[in-house]
Amino acid sequence: MPSIDDTGRRDAGLPAQALFEPESVAVVGVPRKPRPGQLFLQALLDPGYRGRIYPVNPNADEILGLRCYPSVASLPEVVDLAIIVVPTAAAAAVVGECADRGVKAAVLFTAGFSELGTDEGRAREAELLAAARRGRLRLVGPNCMGVYVPKTGLAAFPGMPSEPGGIAFVSQSGSLSNRLVWNGHERGLAFSKVISVGNQADLEASDFVEYLAGDPETGTIAAYIEGAKDGRRLWRALAEAGRRKHLVVWKVGRTASGARAASSHTGALAGEAHVWSGLLRQAGAIQARDVEEMLDVLVVLGHAGRPSGRRMAIVTGPGGPAVSAADACEEAGLELAELSAETKARLREVLAAAGTSVRNPVDIGLVLGGVTEMYRRAVEATIADPNVDAAVVIGGFARGEGWQEHIEAIAALSQAAGKPILEISFPFSDPVVDRALAQAGIASFRGAERALRAYALACREED
Amino acid sequence: MPSIDDTGRRDAGLPAQALFEPESVAVVGVPRKPRPGQLFLQALLDPGYRGRIYPVNPNADEILGLRCYPSVASLPEVVDLAIIVVPTAAAAAVVGECADRGVKAAVLFTAGFSELGTDEGRAREAELLAAARRGRLRLVGPNCMGVYVPKTGLAAFPGMPSEPGGIAFVSQSGSLSNRLVWNGHERGLAFSKVISVGNQADLEASDFVEYLAGDPETGTIAAYIEGAKDGRRLWRALAEAGRRKHLVVWKVGRTASGARAASSHTGALAGEAHVWSGLLRQAGAIQARDVEEMLDVLVVLGHAGRPSGRRMAIVTGPGGPAVSAADACEEAGLELAELSAETKARLREVLAAAGTSVRNPVDIGLVLGGVTEMYRRAVEATIADPNVDAAVVIGGFARGEGWQEHIEAIAALSQAAGKPILEISFPFSDPVVDRALAQAGIASFRGAERALRAYALACREED
Repeated sequence: MPSIDDTGRRDAGLPAQALFEPESVAVVGVPRKPRPGQLFLQALLDPGYRGRIYPVNPNADEILGLRCYPSVASLPEVVDLAIIVVPTAAAAAVVGECADRGVKAAVLFTAGFSELGTDEGRAREAELLAAARRGRLRLVGPNCMGVYVPKTGLAAFPGMPSEPGGIAFVSQSGSLSNRLVWNGHERGLAFSKVISVGNQADLEASDFVEYLAGDPETGTIAAYIEGAKDGRRLWRALAEAGRRKHLVVWKVGRTASGARAASSHTGALAGEAHVWSGLLRQAGAIQARDVEEMLDVLVVLGHAGRPSGRRMAIVTGPGGPAVSAADACEEAGLELAELSAETKARLREVLAAAGTSVRNPVDIGLVLGGVTEMYRRAVEATIADPNVDAAVVIGGFARGEGWQEHIEAIAALSQAAGKPILEISFPFSDPVVDRALAQAGIASFRGAERALRAYALACREED
Repeated sequence: MPSIDDTGRRDAGLPAQALFEPESVAVVGVPRKPRPGQLFLQALLDPGYRGRIYPVNPNADEILGLRCYPSVASLPEVVDLAIIVVPTAAAAAVVGECADRGVKAAVLFTAGFSELGTDEGRAREAELLAAARRGRLRLVGPNCMGVYVPKTGLAAFPGMPSEPGGIAFVSQSGSLSNRLVWNGHERGLAFSKVISVGNQADLEASDFVEYLAGDPETGTIAAYIEGAKDGRRLWRALAEAGRRKHLVVWKVGRTASGARAASSHTGALAGEAHVWSGLLRQAGAIQARDVEEMLDVLVVLGHAGRPSGRRMAIVTGPGGPAVSAADACEEAGLELAELSAETKARLREVLAAAGTSVRNPVDIGLVLGGVTEMYRRAVEATIADPNVDAAVVIGGFARGEGWQEHIEAIAALSQAAGKPILEISFPFSDPVVDRALAQAGIASFRGAERALRAYALACREED
C-alpha cells in the first residue's frame, strides 16, 4: 500500500493500474511529421501496446494511421494514462486539462523545469504540480523517459524487447534505463517494469520502490539513484524492498564532481557517499558502480539467484585466462575451492596428460574444437564436489557439432547440482551462443574477472 | 643488441630475421587430414605468408595443395623457421634434426613438458634444449602459440587480421595473445609482433622485450606476465623498454591462488605481488589488471599517446551517464575541468535552454537524432578551453545523415587542439561507427567509467 508522507503532498496512492496496465493512452503533443517526438507514439505501435491509443494534436486529423484529437477534453473517453510531449511552456495547461478530465496518471517527457537550476524552472515545475492537484492526477517526470512495461506493450522507444521478465528498474536517468533494457536483452535479461522518474516533481523513486517491493511480477529491483529529496523515505523503501526482493542499487554522485553533475541533471541532492553506502548495506542492497557491473550482477541473480557460497571452481581450456581468474577470485573475496581427492581422481580419468591440470583451476588443455565432451565431463566431476559452491567455465562454448546439446548438458549439470555455472566467452562472444546459454539458464560473461566480481557482489553477506 | 646473460646459456642472439621475417618456413608434423593441427599450416595460407612453405609429414605427398616432405633433412633448402606441431614424444628428435640442418629458429606448439610440474616433463624439456644446442637453433616455446607478424603474414590461426600496426605483445598465454589481437582489431588496434612464449625453455619474455625496445616498427610494448625464471633480467629489460616505448604490463599471479595457477600453467614462479608492482612502477610501466583494461589502455595510447593532463571535460547528450562519468573521473584520480567564463559563454550560444548545462559535464540535452551539429559545436568550444586537457564525449555518434563527416569534424577538432577525445558509445556500440572512429583517430569505449580509468592509468606520472 502506498504510504502518505508527512508533507501530506501525496493525496492519492500510486495509480499502478493506470500507469502500468492502462486500457487507454493519450499521447499529447505528438508531432504531425516524423520528428523525434513522434517516436513516443511509434513506441506504442511497435512492438504493440494492445489498449486504445489517442494522438492529441490540434493541427492534425490523423497521425501514423490513428485518428487525432484536438485536445484531451475532446477525447471520446477518460484515458487511464496521458503521455505528454508538448513544449515546456504548454505543459502545465495540458496537465491541468488532464486533471480536469479525470485522467489518473501522466508521464511528462517534456523538460525545462527544476533540472535547469533556475527559479523560473522551479516555478514552472510547481505549476505542473498545482495543475495536477486540481484533480487526482499523479505525474511521472517531468524530464523523464516514462515507463517500459513489456507485458502491456508500453515503451518510450519503438522496437523495445517485448518479452516480460522479473527485473524492475527505477532510474533517475531515462537514457540509462533504455541502455539497461537493451544491453540486458542482449544478455538474456527481461523486465517487469522500468520507470524513468526524471525530476520526481510528484511521484518519486520511493513510491515505485515501495510498490515494486510488493509486486508479484518483480523478483529483483534495480535502481539508479542520483539523490533524493527525502533520503530517509527512500532508504526505508529500499530497506523494505531488500527484505522482500533481490535489490541492486547503483548510486551515483559519490564524489563532489558526481554530486554537482547530479544536481544539474535532475536537481537531485546526492548526499554523502559513505552515508549512502552504509545505509544501502544495511538495506541489504548489492551496490554496483557502473552499468556494466549492474548488468553483470543482474545476470548472476537472474540465473542463479543470490548465491551464498564463495568456494569457486574454475574449469578452463585456455591457460592464461584461468590464471587471471584465480587472481580475480581472491581479489574479489572469493576462494579457489580445494577439490577433493575423489574429484581429482575422476578428472584424471577425463583429461589427457599434456598441458592439463586436475587441480583447481582445472585445465583441460589446448582447445581447438571437438572438445565439448571433455568440458562436459570435467564440469560434471567438478560441480559435484562438495567443496565447490559454483563453477566458472572458461571457453568450450562455440558453434560446432552438437553445440546446443552441449549447452543443455552443462545446464542440466548445474541444475542437478543446484550450483550456478558462470560461463566465460573465450576468445570472443557469439551472440547466438550467448542467447542459447541465457535460454538454458547459464549466466555468461565476457571475462572471468567481471563474472567473479559480480558473483562476489551478489553473494549474500554472512549473518 | 641481444644480451648474453651470466648463465652463458644464450650462445646466439635472438634470430629476429628468421623468426619475424623468415623467407621460408617448414611446418613439421602437420596432419594429413583436417584435424586441429592443420590449422597451423592453414594459418600461413590465410591471410597469406608470402615466403616458401614446406609441410613435413612422412605419410603424405601433399597437404592443402602444398608438396609435402618426409623430414626436415629432406627439405630442398635450409628453412629460416620451423613450426613444430609433432606429438610430445617426437619433439626432441625433430628439434635435433632442425639444429643439425642449420635451421635458426623453431616455434614449438607441442605441449607436455615442464608445465606438467613433473620430473619427466622437466627432463623432456631439457632434452629439447640439448637438441637445439647441437646447432645454433633458438626455440620459442614449447607449449606456446608462436608468433603473429601481420607484416610478413605469420600467424598461428587462420584469418588473423592482416593490417600491421605499432603494438607488440609478449605473452605467457597463447590464448590471451590470440584474444588480444582479435578484440584489439575490433577496436582499431593493429600489431607489429605478437609472441606467445610458452614455457620459455630457451628464448624468454626478456629476450623479446629487449629486442622490441629497439624495434623501429614497435611504438608500444604490451606484456602478459605470469612470472620469470630470472626476474631481475626481465625487470631490467622492462625498465629499458619503458624508457624507450610505451609499456603496458598485465602481471598475473598477484594472489596466492593466481600464483599457484600460473605455476601449473607455464611453470612460472609468480613472485611477490607488491615487489612486482613496485618494480613495474619504477620501470615506467602502466599496470593493467585484466584483458579489457589492457585493451582500454592500448586504445588510449594508440589514439592519444601517453597523456599528461588530468583535467577532463565531459560533453554529453544523455544525462545519467555523465553523472556516473563525473564520479569515475574523480575516483580514478582525474579532475573535472573548471571551464572558463569564455567557454561557458560560447556554450550558451550553442545549446538550447531546456535540459542542458554549460557547466562541466556539458549537457547538450535530450538526444534523439539530428543533433550532430550541436555536439560538434559543443566539443569545439570545450576542447579549446585552456583549462581542459582531454574530452570525453558521450553519445552523438550514430549512423545518420552525414555521420562520417561528423566523425571527421570531431577528429579534426581533437587534432587542432592537440588534445585527445575519448568517445563513449551510447546507448550501444555500432561496429561500423566504431571502426570509422578508430580510423579517424578517435578512441572509443563502451562506457565512460572504463575510458576514464584507462586514461588515468595511461597518464604519465608527475616527475
